Amino acid sequence: MSMPNLTRDAFLGGLLHLWQPRDGYRAGVDPVLLAATIPAVSGQRVLELGCGVGAAVLCLGARVPDLVLTGVERERQYAELAARNGAGQLEVVQADLAELPLTLRQRQFDHVLANPPYWRREASVSARNPVKEAALGEQTALALWIQVAAKRLAPKGYMHVIHRAERLPDLLSALPSDMGSIEVLPIAARAGRSAERVIMRARKSGRADFRLNAPLVLHRGDHHVDGDQYNPEVGKALRSGAALRF
Amino acid sequence: MSMPNLTRDAFLGGLLHLWQPRDGYRAGVDPVLLAATIPAVSGQRVLELGCGVGAAVLCLGARVPDLVLTGVERERQYAELAARNGAGQLEVVQADLAELPLTLRQRQFDHVLANPPYWRREASVSARNPVKEAALGEQTALALWIQVAAKRLAPKGYMHVIHRAERLPDLLSALPSDMGSIEVLPIAARAGRSAERVIMRARKSGRADFRLNAPLVLHRGDHHVDGDQYNPEVGKALRSGAALRF
Repeated sequence: MSMPNLTRDAFLGGLLHLWQPRDGYRAGVDPVLLAATIPAVSGQRVLELGCGVGAAVLCLGARVPDLVLTGVERERQYAELAARNGAGQLEVVQADLAELPLTLRQRQFDHVLANPPYWRREASVSARNPVKEAALGEQTALALWIQVAAKRLAPKGYMHVIHRAERLPDLLSALPSDMGSIEVLPIAARAGRSAERVIMRARKSGRADFRLNAPLVLHRGDHHVDGDQYNPEVGKALRSGAALRF
Repeated sequence: MSMPNLTRDAFLGGLLHLWQPRDGYRAGVDPVLLAATIPAVSGQRVLELGCGVGAAVLCLGARVPDLVLTGVERERQYAELAARNGAGQLEVVQADLAELPLTLRQRQFDHVLANPPYWRREASVSARNPVKEAALGEQTALALWIQVAAKRLAPKGYMHVIHRAERLPDLLSALPSDMGSIEVLPIAARAGRSAERVIMRARKSGRADFRLNAPLVLHRGDHHVDGDQYNPEVGKALRSGAALRF
């Protein structure tokens, strides 16, 4: 079953295959890293906000068996691909975060994750495709993602959000006061570099102190040599679906 | 000139000597690291809030010649020691941050730095000395330190604050909206550990994106072996007054 505008791509070393639009937003390393840091256990309910084709939530489902997986996606094209990629294991709700249907607003989840679109000038300038623009831009305010995620969490439930490191102050300030035990995992391309991404973890009703963890360094070495070699822990997460320490 | 309740301690490998109370708050590594990260150049005006005996501002003065140095300290005993330690190079104003005298409120500075007291349970429980308790506790809200620092900055002036990493969200949220170009330097005891301290840098009217920098790792090795060996860049900052990259 091939379609001219789609590609079917292997994730986690082939544990997972995803249909993606050839030209739109395409899942990269970020949703895979996000999924690898989530301490979910079998039987838990997981919600991904803005799930796209389902990369993060399906990576998590490939690592942890018997999760109850739900994704929300506003764009129909992506929502349909997420449902197809989920192959019956992922419930997909096509909806805007600002207007979740009552069926979702009445439910709580043990984990809510999100990889909100990053606004990137170079992408936005060249994007002619409105769906791609929505995925790359920030049509939905970042604070709304955080607020909706917090609302859908069960007591003691975890939120995990990956975003550009530049947005860390906005991520922190958007957390409602009932979210605590906040931890930040900086993600840097190489040792000694500033973080490019952060994963923010927070827990509903958590009471532990804020923690700023040691960075996850993606690549070995100081600069590009011999291609781009991943650090072993990152390689295992990307290529065989291993969990990552937070 | 020795006094029974005071010690005279060498900093920066003997470039600087400071009189300190034997039993009160004693300057450690933090003010020295703070001073080492500040990009001051000769001729600039520097203000330290809550300067104690003057450790941070005098370490900065020992590295960068011809700065105009001012310190504010609420506790008379520390203010007097700061003046003595400054030996005519440090103007000390005894005042509460919440009630700075008009002479200070009319002035602007190129750099404002602060090492606000950390509330530490173990110290607070054992402290019988109210001056020590004030230095170790948080009688003055952290947000007030940040707001006063911002107010005293000249356009494009830099604020640097060192604090426990646990307080990073509070540091960020206390920054007034005219402060930008925020950068955070995590400080970790060893590679792979969570940050124990952070230095937050922000610039008045700065417009650069937030940056989360690579951590400054204090000690070499994974655990305590052969005493506590500092990483070379840290050793140079502590023992010979070298600048630290941010």
